Amino acid sequence: MAANSNPTIGKELFAHVETLFPICRSITGKGLRETLLYVARQIPLDLHELPTGMKVLDWEIPREWNPRGAWIRTLSNETIVDFAWNNLHLVQYSHAVDKIVPAEELQQHLHSLPNQPDLIPYRTAYYADTWGFCLPDRILKTMTDPTYRVFIDADLSPGTLTYGECFLPGREQGEVLFSIHCCHPSLANDNLSAIAVGIELARALAKRERRYGYRFLLIPAIAWLSQNRDAVEHVHHGLVLTCLGDAAPFTYKVSRRGDASIDQIIAHVLHHEASDNRLQPFEPYGYDERQYCSPGFDLPVGCLMRSPNGSFPEYHTSADSLSLVRPEHLARSFAVLEQIVDVIEGDATYRSTCPYGEPQLGRRGLYRSIGGGTEHPFDQMALLWVLNLADGRHSLLDIAKRARMPFTTVRIAVDVLVKAGLLVPVG
Amino acid sequence: MAANSNPTIGKELFAHVETLFPICRSITGKGLRETLLYVARQIPLDLHELPTGMKVLDWEIPREWNPRGAWIRTLSNETIVDFAWNNLHLVQYSHAVDKIVPAEELQQHLHSLPNQPDLIPYRTAYYADTWGFCLPDRILKTMTDPTYRVFIDADLSPGTLTYGECFLPGREQGEVLFSIHCCHPSLANDNLSAIAVGIELARALAKRERRYGYRFLLIPAIAWLSQNRDAVEHVHHGLVLTCLGDAAPFTYKVSRRGDASIDQIIAHVLHHEASDNRLQPFEPYGYDERQYCSPGFDLPVGCLMRSPNGSFPEYHTSADSLSLVRPEHLARSFAVLEQIVDVIEGDATYRSTCPYGEPQLGRRGLYRSIGGGTEHPFDQMALLWVLNLADGRHSLLDIAKRARMPFTTVRIAVDVLVKAGLLVPVG
Amino acid sequence: MAANSNPTIGKELFAHVETLFPICRSITGKGLRETLLYVARQIPLDLHELPTGMKVLDWEIPREWNPRGAWIRTLSNETIVDFAWNNLHLVQYSHAVDKIVPAEELQQHLHSLPNQPDLIPYRTAYYADTWGFCLPDRILKTMTDPTYRVFIDADLSPGTLTYGECFLPGREQGEVLFSIHCCHPSLANDNLSAIAVGIELARALAKRERRYGYRFLLIPAIAWLSQNRDAVEHVHHGLVLTCLGDAAPFTYKVSRRGDASIDQIIAHVLHHEASDNRLQPFEPYGYDERQYCSPGFDLPVGCLMRSPNGSFPEYHTSADSLSLVRPEHLARSFAVLEQIVDVIEGDATYRSTCPYGEPQLGRRGLYRSIGGGTEHPFDQMALLWVLNLADGRHSLLDIAKRARMPFTTVRIAVDVLVKAGLLVPVG
Repeated sequence: MAANSNPTIGKELFAHVETLFPICRSITGKGLRETLLYVARQIPLDLHELPTGMKVLDWEIPREWNPRGAWIRTLSNETIVDFAWNNLHLVQYSHAVDKIVPAEELQQHLHSLPNQPDLIPYRTAYYADTWGFCLPDRILKTMTDPTYRVFIDADLSPGTLTYGECFLPGREQGEVLFSIHCCHPSLANDNLSAIAVGIELARALAKRERRYGYRFLLIPAIAWLSQNRDAVEHVHHGLVLTCLGDAAPFTYKVSRRGDASIDQIIAHVLHHEASDNRLQPFEPYGYDERQYCSPGFDLPVGCLMRSPNGSFPEYHTSADSLSLVRPEHLARSFAVLEQIVDVIEGDATYRSTCPYGEPQLGRRGLYRSIGGGTEHPFDQMALLWVLNLADGRHSLLDIAKRARMPFTTVRIAVDVLVKAGLLVPVG
Repeated sequence: MAANSNPTIGKELFAHVETLFPICRSITGKGLRETLLYVARQIPLDLHELPTGMKVLDWEIPREWNPRGAWIRTLSNETIVDFAWNNLHLVQYSHAVDKIVPAEELQQHLHSLPNQPDLIPYRTAYYADTWGFCLPDRILKTMTDPTYRVFIDADLSPGTLTYGECFLPGREQGEVLFSIHCCHPSLANDNLSAIAVGIELARALAKRERRYGYRFLLIPAIAWLSQNRDAVEHVHHGLVLTCLGDAAPFTYKVSRRGDASIDQIIAHVLHHEASDNRLQPFEPYGYDERQYCSPGFDLPVGCLMRSPNGSFPEYHTSADSLSLVRPEHLARSFAVLEQIVDVIEGDATYRSTCPYGEPQLGRRGLYRSIGGGTEHPFDQMALLWVLNLADGRHSLLDIAKRARMPFTTVRIAVDVLVKAGLLVPVG
Repeated sequence: MAANSNPTIGKELFAHVETLFPICRSITGKGLRETLLYVARQIPLDLHELPTGMKVLDWEIPREWNPRGAWIRTLSNETIVDFAWNNLHLVQYSHAVDKIVPAEELQQHLHSLPNQPDLIPYRTAYYADTWGFCLPDRILKTMTDPTYRVFIDADLSPGTLTYGECFLPGREQGEVLFSIHCCHPSLANDNLSAIAVGIELARALAKRERRYGYRFLLIPAIAWLSQNRDAVEHVHHGLVLTCLGDAAPFTYKVSRRGDASIDQIIAHVLHHEASDNRLQPFEPYGYDERQYCSPGFDLPVGCLMRSPNGSFPEYHTSADSLSLVRPEHLARSFAVLEQIVDVIEGDATYRSTCPYGEPQLGRRGLYRSIGGGTEHPFDQMALLWVLNLADGRHSLLDIAKRARMPFTTVRIAVDVLVKAGLLVPVG
């Protein structure tokens, strides 16, 4: 079912990932800003800067971190690891260091994955005043010298946290929120895949007539929420987008409410898209859905993924690279989001103008006669379902669910029936 | 469980089917009228005539169709098919024809079943101005002549549509509706089986004291609904009856509401009657339930069948004949309908006169003493369940469901307890 | 999970069972009184005496039954069965007899279990004016003499029915009811096991600070209910305790309401305690839950058991002896009841003081930093769940259920968060 009207969309999505991959992002700093400026060249994106120390809900904007270089060398000047080789080598928010340290002390600052000895882990220390390196366990095991030289050239000083916001207004006041984190360094699936899909989704939405406003946030949610506490009442539907480039089927983590419209919409779309897509209950952990779904906000925001965070072996390691993410997977994620938007935009309630008995479809050219083939552009049963349930109390999504049909099939039937004068919109 | 008090009922039911089988019925015409007159000789049936062209809801009463003869012959006068052999050979509502036609043109008017080459299909063309024949594919394949002579002697002209209505009044104003279509020609299961069961059910109901009024309609629902738009408010329960003579377990298609009383009653009766009986969700297709359940009416009307329409190989073919329908299957259908009526009539709400603690059944002769056998005509647990749930909020059907007992067992316990002064009816 | 803080509790529980086992109890009489006096030496127990003939709800207090001796002998003075050997030999409420009876007549008064030929059955005849003996079928089969001498020395005369009541008041007016029957003679699991557990549970509750009042009833429920018809409104939770000493997993029979708090609490505790524990629907049969759950009272009272009544081969036979009940099984039952009490006492509703976004746990020492181990005494996810659901609408039990965590884990997290100022109680 995953239709995709644009045959080149996979390549375009992958090109965004490729371009952004080398940049060293963090929750603050030049790499993050460079990434957002790239996005701002693709779609209308406002950049906001929040100063270090500013109170954001229960949190505080941290110092800005800007690494320039970092390495560990033997005393005979052999380089063991270098930030220039892979920005995962440096623990994020490490402060500057330049000294010779005994192996025993150095060990306290090294992180590796003994069970995945070839991979570099991804580690952060936002609120700890420390430094550290990440490296393959295989290399760690070769470090037998008594002392090493350690060098980190990085600023950790007052500055700003940057976040991006793209708003496409709609006919109605209600809004749809897409939230995409962009604080990870060279990790492709988590979360350049979602940045790429977000760019193209915003671009596609910008071109179409919109019932809802669409707001794309590239952001830590807490920063935006702290600035927009009253605006949240306009959020009718919301989605955190992450890990949308790998080969796994979709996993949708439902909102805290569990039965919000967005939960029902995505359950429906994923059910018809592939039988191995699955839903996952809400838990207050994972991505920024935990902020949108904190009890004070309790927004209808779920999280759409392919492989869920923590569940795939490449997660938060150097293996989450350009080889994990494929153009066709990105394209399928984009197509599913288009279907989700189609339901959000197209769902409505109608009333039959002919509710007593079944209308005579034949004289309106809407019924197969003897030997009639499949020349009709609509589904005969969809017409009957819509007419039967168009009582002003069933939305089109309700009808699609009860008829066990894709929303699109029902939507097409509705358009045919409206044209025939058999349906009128309600409210 | 399927008890049947009348040992000869199977034979009587089958005799109705046999008598009516040869008649060529359609939605109008003499065959239909002859059939209804037969029914009117069995039960008090009012016949109504609606004139051609009359508006009935969104539809119009069609012209009356009366076929007299029809055949296809070779030019050497060999008869290929003849309406006299089987009235399924003629497409219903075919207009008169008498000409020699080239084989190629004739092909456009012939209907067969390539996958069931020995059977004649059943086809109609109510609202198309055409003619046609149905025949076994095996015969169709032998028709290699370049031309054939085709003859149809049929009237298609203004007249009336006839429908039958039998009403048996009850103590209360509420009504139970049984709707039975009788527009099919020589098809035994669909639907002479239900006509036969309907006749005997009405006859049995006429003899008993009735709480509800019972209305039997032999009819296209649209015709009756158009004449009785306000009367529908009295319909408390309704059932479309069809295909009640074959060997399959029961299938009950629930009403549009899904949880109407009739849905719960039949789910209960069928559950206890046999473990392979099954429920089917509503869909706006099938028989006249689609009219009763159109959104303007939304009546509590389901559809009771053995094999569901479209699901058995003999459906709408010449194999739906007297050999498909057996007296014992008809008798079982009749018995289940009697049970359904027993629940409809017998369901009520009671209140215990001794609600604090369990009443002492022993001193009322309602408890087994030591070594007591099974001499009691009631079920001990049923007494306890009824006393426990007789709080004025549980109907007897609620109690039977919670106790996982047949309704009859509960009903018998109630009668015992009422007699003992331990229960009083509510409302 | 079945933690037990007291390593000697199993022995103490078993000692009660051992002490009480030889006594011949019935619903009235000296054996019952002796049993209650034993309990009264362990916990503060009020004894109430209701006179024979007194009306209790729909019942009447029976005569007091006091057996002194009973036997069957051959005419050559060989003893076949003797009440002194096992008090199950005498049918309870047998009246006095002293005569020589023909074997044929005697047979009418003998009860055995042909399928369990070595066991003595337990039989009563409270409201029948008769006498009888119970004996192993193997012995019955050897009784081939033409006549036997039968002797029963028993009083059946006006007296009193005794019941015991222990009330431990709480901070709040609501009460928790534990109902334990003690009318069975030498049967260990049914129900000395529950008397023993009840004694120790009352003793443990007496020592702790209590939110609820706790009422232990050793009683036929009808007697207490008849005296306390208005007091029942204070019963917030209730449990019938029985058969708590055998090796089976727990079975909880839910209350008539089915979804009372006590039902949810026990479902939760048993679910986390062992995967083979199970729930059983309510039915108006079994123990005194049928009285508490009669429609006039409809109290939230379920029944906690190991093997359910009637489901184990030793049930109501001489095999329900001291060898069926083990100290470790009694200890596990006691531990589960302590957990149940912990939930009853500890369940409450809280509100987050920081509901907008997730609070920064790190600066409060409540978040693992890099390389952090498991040194925290609380569960990290439990903190996040509690903060997320502490909206004043979710009880802690609701949170534990949604988080799929044991209640204790949630309760510990709550205490940590209250101390950190992040939670306040509601109402």
